Amino acid sequence: MNKKATIKEEIYQIIFEADTKLGKRFDIALIILIIVSIISVMLESVQSIQQDYGQFLKTLEWVITIVFTLEYILRLWIVHQPAKFVFSFFGIIDFLSFLPTYLGLIFVGSHGLMVIRGLRLLRIFRVFKLTRYVNESNYLMKALKASRFKISIFLYAVVMLIVIIGAIMYLVEGEVNGFDSIPRSMYWVVVTITTVGFGDIVPQTTLGQFIASLVMILGYAIIAVPTGIVSAELSFSKKTTNIVSTQVCPECLKEGHEADAKFCKYCGSEINPY
Amino acid sequence: MNKKATIKEEIYQIIFEADTKLGKRFDIALIILIIVSIISVMLESVQSIQQDYGQFLKTLEWVITIVFTLEYILRLWIVHQPAKFVFSFFGIIDFLSFLPTYLGLIFVGSHGLMVIRGLRLLRIFRVFKLTRYVNESNYLMKALKASRFKISIFLYAVVMLIVIIGAIMYLVEGEVNGFDSIPRSMYWVVVTITTVGFGDIVPQTTLGQFIASLVMILGYAIIAVPTGIVSAELSFSKKTTNIVSTQVCPECLKEGHEADAKFCKYCGSEINPY
Amino acid sequence: MNKKATIKEEIYQIIFEADTKLGKRFDIALIILIIVSIISVMLESVQSIQQDYGQFLKTLEWVITIVFTLEYILRLWIVHQPAKFVFSFFGIIDFLSFLPTYLGLIFVGSHGLMVIRGLRLLRIFRVFKLTRYVNESNYLMKALKASRFKISIFLYAVVMLIVIIGAIMYLVEGEVNGFDSIPRSMYWVVVTITTVGFGDIVPQTTLGQFIASLVMILGYAIIAVPTGIVSAELSFSKKTTNIVSTQVCPECLKEGHEADAKFCKYCGSEINPY
Amino acid sequence: MNKKATIKEEIYQIIFEADTKLGKRFDIALIILIIVSIISVMLESVQSIQQDYGQFLKTLEWVITIVFTLEYILRLWIVHQPAKFVFSFFGIIDFLSFLPTYLGLIFVGSHGLMVIRGLRLLRIFRVFKLTRYVNESNYLMKALKASRFKISIFLYAVVMLIVIIGAIMYLVEGEVNGFDSIPRSMYWVVVTITTVGFGDIVPQTTLGQFIASLVMILGYAIIAVPTGIVSAELSFSKKTTNIVSTQVCPECLKEGHEADAKFCKYCGSEINPY
Repeated sequence: MNKKATIKEEIYQIIFEADTKLGKRFDIALIILIIVSIISVMLESVQSIQQDYGQFLKTLEWVITIVFTLEYILRLWIVHQPAKFVFSFFGIIDFLSFLPTYLGLIFVGSHGLMVIRGLRLLRIFRVFKLTRYVNESNYLMKALKASRFKISIFLYAVVMLIVIIGAIMYLVEGEVNGFDSIPRSMYWVVVTITTVGFGDIVPQTTLGQFIASLVMILGYAIIAVPTGIVSAELSFSKKTTNIVSTQVCPECLKEGHEADAKFCKYCGSEINPY
Repeated sequence: MNKKATIKEEIYQIIFEADTKLGKRFDIALIILIIVSIISVMLESVQSIQQDYGQFLKTLEWVITIVFTLEYILRLWIVHQPAKFVFSFFGIIDFLSFLPTYLGLIFVGSHGLMVIRGLRLLRIFRVFKLTRYVNESNYLMKALKASRFKISIFLYAVVMLIVIIGAIMYLVEGEVNGFDSIPRSMYWVVVTITTVGFGDIVPQTTLGQFIASLVMILGYAIIAVPTGIVSAELSFSKKTTNIVSTQVCPECLKEGHEADAKFCKYCGSEINPY
Repeated sequence: MNKKATIKEEIYQIIFEADTKLGKRFDIALIILIIVSIISVMLESVQSIQQDYGQFLKTLEWVITIVFTLEYILRLWIVHQPAKFVFSFFGIIDFLSFLPTYLGLIFVGSHGLMVIRGLRLLRIFRVFKLTRYVNESNYLMKALKASRFKISIFLYAVVMLIVIIGAIMYLVEGEVNGFDSIPRSMYWVVVTITTVGFGDIVPQTTLGQFIASLVMILGYAIIAVPTGIVSAELSFSKKTTNIVSTQVCPECLKEGHEADAKFCKYCGSEINPY
Repeated sequence: MNKKATIKEEIYQIIFEADTKLGKRFDIALIILIIVSIISVMLESVQSIQQDYGQFLKTLEWVITIVFTLEYILRLWIVHQPAKFVFSFFGIIDFLSFLPTYLGLIFVGSHGLMVIRGLRLLRIFRVFKLTRYVNESNYLMKALKASRFKISIFLYAVVMLIVIIGAIMYLVEGEVNGFDSIPRSMYWVVVTITTVGFGDIVPQTTLGQFIASLVMILGYAIIAVPTGIVSAELSFSKKTTNIVSTQVCPECLKEGHEADAKFCKYCGSEINPY
């Protein structure tokens, strides 16, 4: 089909698609590079490693940055509509993946630089490309999307509980026991209701401990709700996707007939039994 | 339909219903006001903000209180049966939403005032009006109501476990290790069985740690029960409410057609569209 | 039906059954007494309450003990097979409910007495009688029984994980960081894998923290398994109990036909459509 | 059937199979020995027990090691293809179960010896043989395998969240509050998102506590996903395997009859019993 492909088209297939052998290799090389760069950022933040291998990590950072820059320029040159690519989701992510290192040259402040460095971690999102080919992830996403509304109602109720219980605990325990303000008290409620329980703020009074017990049992009971929502949604989409046969109506060509259907439910013509 | 509506009827539509454009705007304005008032209560409890913006927050509190008072009077004047409104759920909530600020004038005691301030947070319940229009929340509520009985049996069993294990841990660990009384020991069991784990009270003896391990694994295992109940209930109500329409084929009188079916899947005759 | 019931039979109906008005009242009185006695045991363990109301609580304890003793003697006299009752589950529980107080007279050692006092809490199990009449609890029990085998396999795998990870963490962290022995290290694994996280023992080395992270994610992932088992079981028993119609075959009188069945699946005769 | 079995064949049946009486006894004896050896390793790690019973535990260790060595040699002699057995999963596990004790003779370093001792715990995997006969575990395994792909996508998303939130928290909290490096910050995210919450590292700044609250609610919400996946999978495999038999009505050729159906529920004709 692509007999007379120009070099541009060939490169397009390599860096934008993963169907050809070279395209796959390119993608894998890119993913390895991204992971190496992320690990290098992590290690750089460790004091002792920074002292011993700081120079090597800095060099590595610059090599990867230059590779990403060249790749970005290549993509810009190869793509049919460069403007559209620049403002697309992956275009922005690609741009942000090498920007921080260059910005580090101009703004020398170490702390500010660190904040920008954090953005570079978004580079990992590019690896999501991988999952684009994965059918299953769409299935998961669909179930989550379908239950998104129910989950947001649930989260809304949870946030209200956090505000009200936070205010009550602030009044009951007071500043002496670490509940200095309603926001801090709400932080404690989140820590408790989600069953995390750091233990940095802890009720000291008997009444406070009693309310805390109720909050914990409540949290224990309502943890069931989001789980139930997602379970039901996954169960349902599993069922509907599995029950439906792969048959196509010979007349109107519509799909999605149930396994036991003998006639097309859209046009009424008989469906081929086999 | 409401051509010759008097002013009273028009106002009724604005403040009690959300179907008209003005009614919707009124509701949104009210919700924003409630959220602003809640955030102001929160910020007031933070020491540093209280010192710098205390006067502004106090003024804001009074403005919102007066707006709520006027709104309440308006509702009383407009409604067909004022007495019924006063003692309705939202009537009481509306009344309690401005009461605390006025009570703060009479009773000057700072601590008492704080308790009343907490009540004001109930104002947020009015926002629930929003969800009244949301169909999905009814669906969630129905599933929770249906499983309410099973969940209460489960909670009953959990409370009994807490009492018994609390007594055992009190006997095993004793006052030296922080388990001063059975109620405090029960508080520890709640903290442990719900997997919160503050770490303020912790078993020190080997036997205590062994029993604690059993309690944790138990808690881990029984967390499955309420989740399973709600999942099953949601799964079931989803299945019955969503899949199948209530239409009956006019020819073969068979039921169980999907909502998007136009022809009977058993005999092929057309199904009544309404 | 019970026209010529002797006094013995009447008392039997009151204290062993809950169908008559008097029987119900007797049961409720008993439950209140049990709860009062449990709360009194709890309060007695609180130092400050013990000092102020110790004498009152002691008297209350003796009154309840004597009432329970008399009730036990009454049951023994009324029941048809006393020997069978004595060794039945509720017979033993009834006996243990008043024994500790008498034993407290002979053995004066305060600590030993406290251990026995703990047994008295088993008295609460009698309240389970309540649930015997509740149909739903059987439904829950059935689902748990059905999944009991799968849950025990799961627990077995979890215990093995705890042993292995416990040994690894003992070797990695060592005594310096609080992991003094494999049993204590296993206690830490239980605290971590069940997501309780007390924080009394915490990994200090980088490798230890890395392994701990894996254990936590593992625990997070496998929490899904028991939940899934119970959910599936409840979903299944819900479905099968609900789909089945209440129709009885007019020929063979067997029940359990599906809602869409037209003919009895046991004898082949037509089932009444309505 | 095995009338003229040679001694070799008889021993084979005893140590490799569990169908005969002797084979079952041999397996049970082996399991007891393994458990005893594991408990002995655990107890040896406890300082006080090591001092008092160290000699006895050392002797026990050697006895069990020799028994396992003899058993391994016996298996090698009895098996049809010794080479295949040596490199099979259970062959390697069997070999590793006695190797550490011998290695302890050559390498005297106490710390190194302890690491090898840990390997011995893998011996417990042999007990898995038990579950091979259990049908239910296959059912669980199948459901987990089916959802393995979805769970790995989910874990991938979770790991990415951990990296990104870890970097953000490192920038927000900094070294002063215990978040010394991105890896340590990621450790904190894992502790928090899995709702473990040790409390060894805790956010101190207001912004840090706000982000922590979001992370906890997020963790609380996404705990639903793996649970939902496994629930749906178990629900589905339960439904398909249990309800319906594969029988087809010989008259109307319809399927979907229950396992206990004797007559077709659609036309009333008898179904073939086998």
